[in-house]
Amino acid sequence: MLHARSAALSRRHKLVREAAARHSVDAVLVTSRPNIFYLTNFTGSSAIAVVTADRLHFITDFRYITAVESLQQSEESCPDFDLTVVDGTYDATLLRLLASLKVSRVGFEAAHLTVSRYNWLVDQLGRSTAVPPTLVPTEQLVEHLRVRKDADEIEIFREAARRLSAVARGVFEEIKAGRTEQEVARAIDARIIAGGFERTSFDTIVASGPQAALPHAHPTERMLGENDLVVLDFGGVYRSYCVDLTRTVAVGRASSRAREVHAAVLEAHDRAIQAVAPGRSRFAIDAAARDSLTSKGLGEAFGHGTGHGLGIEIHEDPRITRRTGEAARAGSEGNEVDEAVAPGMVFTIEPGAYLPGWGGVRIEDDVLVTEHGVEVLTSVTTDLLEL
Amino acid sequence: MLHARSAALSRRHKLVREAAARHSVDAVLVTSRPNIFYLTNFTGSSAIAVVTADRLHFITDFRYITAVESLQQSEESCPDFDLTVVDGTYDATLLRLLASLKVSRVGFEAAHLTVSRYNWLVDQLGRSTAVPPTLVPTEQLVEHLRVRKDADEIEIFREAARRLSAVARGVFEEIKAGRTEQEVARAIDARIIAGGFERTSFDTIVASGPQAALPHAHPTERMLGENDLVVLDFGGVYRSYCVDLTRTVAVGRASSRAREVHAAVLEAHDRAIQAVAPGRSRFAIDAAARDSLTSKGLGEAFGHGTGHGLGIEIHEDPRITRRTGEAARAGSEGNEVDEAVAPGMVFTIEPGAYLPGWGGVRIEDDVLVTEHGVEVLTSVTTDLLEL
Repeated sequence: MLHARSAALSRRHKLVREAAARHSVDAVLVTSRPNIFYLTNFTGSSAIAVVTADRLHFITDFRYITAVESLQQSEESCPDFDLTVVDGTYDATLLRLLASLKVSRVGFEAAHLTVSRYNWLVDQLGRSTAVPPTLVPTEQLVEHLRVRKDADEIEIFREAARRLSAVARGVFEEIKAGRTEQEVARAIDARIIAGGFERTSFDTIVASGPQAALPHAHPTERMLGENDLVVLDFGGVYRSYCVDLTRTVAVGRASSRAREVHAAVLEAHDRAIQAVAPGRSRFAIDAAARDSLTSKGLGEAFGHGTGHGLGIEIHEDPRITRRTGEAARAGSEGNEVDEAVAPGMVFTIEPGAYLPGWGGVRIEDDVLVTEHGVEVLTSVTTDLLEL
Repeated sequence: MLHARSAALSRRHKLVREAAARHSVDAVLVTSRPNIFYLTNFTGSSAIAVVTADRLHFITDFRYITAVESLQQSEESCPDFDLTVVDGTYDATLLRLLASLKVSRVGFEAAHLTVSRYNWLVDQLGRSTAVPPTLVPTEQLVEHLRVRKDADEIEIFREAARRLSAVARGVFEEIKAGRTEQEVARAIDARIIAGGFERTSFDTIVASGPQAALPHAHPTERMLGENDLVVLDFGGVYRSYCVDLTRTVAVGRASSRAREVHAAVLEAHDRAIQAVAPGRSRFAIDAAARDSLTSKGLGEAFGHGTGHGLGIEIHEDPRITRRTGEAARAGSEGNEVDEAVAPGMVFTIEPGAYLPGWGGVRIEDDVLVTEHGVEVLTSVTTDLLEL
């Protein structure tokens, strides 16, 4: 009998094979590291997987052999697993594996294979096999499966969000006039690690005073000053899954303008969360936040999307954004996912308002779409704290 | 007059333009994030650069506008800089930029553009321009420049290595029987951040007892035990540059076998460093370490290369390895760099010996090739400490 986490992998493999059938390919070459983790539980940094009708062929190098062996002896072992150890380079090893598999059409992840590697593989397959397999580009084949989390993943998210919320409560103690943004950021990072996370899930943001007008500010040498608003945005990776949280606090007393902007962003945040339910449009969730801010004259000050999916990567689908344009989706023409959100999806709700020269406010929580509505995973006060 | 760090960028742009001329292209599309930093000092996570005969066209999204503006007003500003803010997606914005530049052959980084993006760009250029520019694959065009560090980079490395050495001395205080590998790893990470690093440069390794037989072990819940050897491998990113250091220590008394293996690895380490000088073959430096271990019956126990280049990335050229095979160079058929090392190159020297079931030893320092020999940047005792 398979243990639960191995059984989850079996279900994922089955879905990959169904997708392969729809693409008329007899193997799927997986080169994306998060996708490889999703299909194998392997956490190392270098590997290639090839999913065929009945096996998961796995290529890694000598550095990871012991790790793979211990994974395969654990309750998280990958089913139908065939290990090939790298001899020479990864792609030379892949080439020999593909030749040995007698496959005719191999789907590959076009978004996770560079032009260099593709050209080399096509060239070498042509030289080394009598009837070379055709490499067929696919898009989001595995990513699409990752959007809805399964029961194991949801348990990890609940624990990760609980831990991040506990970290956040400690973070508030770090806020003192005279400390620099960088000092506070380092203290937050140390608390994330002390909180049991494997690492931070992105570069921690501590943006004070006018710096807070930059949604993705790097912490600077600027000292926190009395009456500053400070945006604190941080997250961690727990058992390979990313969580993310933002609070905006005041150093000493908040100005009346600060209270006003904070209240407006909080209302947008609450309205977006209230809009989350299975079957709802992700654009409608964004609109709930955006319309609320627009009604208070802050629509222009909210330049980014309302949220992003969380998972093995810090930015995943679904994107909770306006229907058109999506600047934050950097460098890719990724295909659209379904418009409706569905049970098992986990994403952030993080509206903000950014006023150049003045500062900004952002409030972010992580939510899970349930069968009947929404579960807010993170749990920290959303009041404007004066510290 | 340009400030020193801006002047360094000018020199780099000039070298890119010379490389472009050799490839007969009239523009170079740069999509690799470390390469973009190298050419602009921009530290954000999303951008595209296009270097033409007289400009550096820079695409980023609204999140980074303020950061770019403040960079451009600083002493590190990028010369000949033309900012285009993303409208829609990055690649749609790039498409419009390329069409507006009236270029006929555009070199792109084949190792840093996916098949998805390439296919989309070629397709869209064909639709939107009367005479579409040809996209010409290039390999390592910017990476090749990055191998030899300039004076500014060397100063950063010296300071980073000094700081990492100070961190290492503190790390020794964390070693106590009964603590788990994960606890020690978290304490190391906190010390790296407290030491002024922006982040760790890779996942910290704490491998104790038999775990130390894995060169890239993940820290586990295993408790350090009396007489264990513990491999401590950690690093940080300082002003965007990566440094890396390993020491192997004993918990309490070291066994005679542990002393013997440690002494053998240390001799290999010292011999490799003595072999570093401008003009020396990187394979000969590896052989200095490898032959020394082989002479003590530990050649088979040393399964990886002697070192790797350091820079904006933790693993760069030059690779200090055997002449054939290079499993650690994961997933790419990167072209060879020059065999001879040259002044300005910075790399690790990190021989090891790994004995399955028993454990392992690795000793790593970071070195700079100078005009006349070698400068060891890291400075921590290499004695076998009994803690």
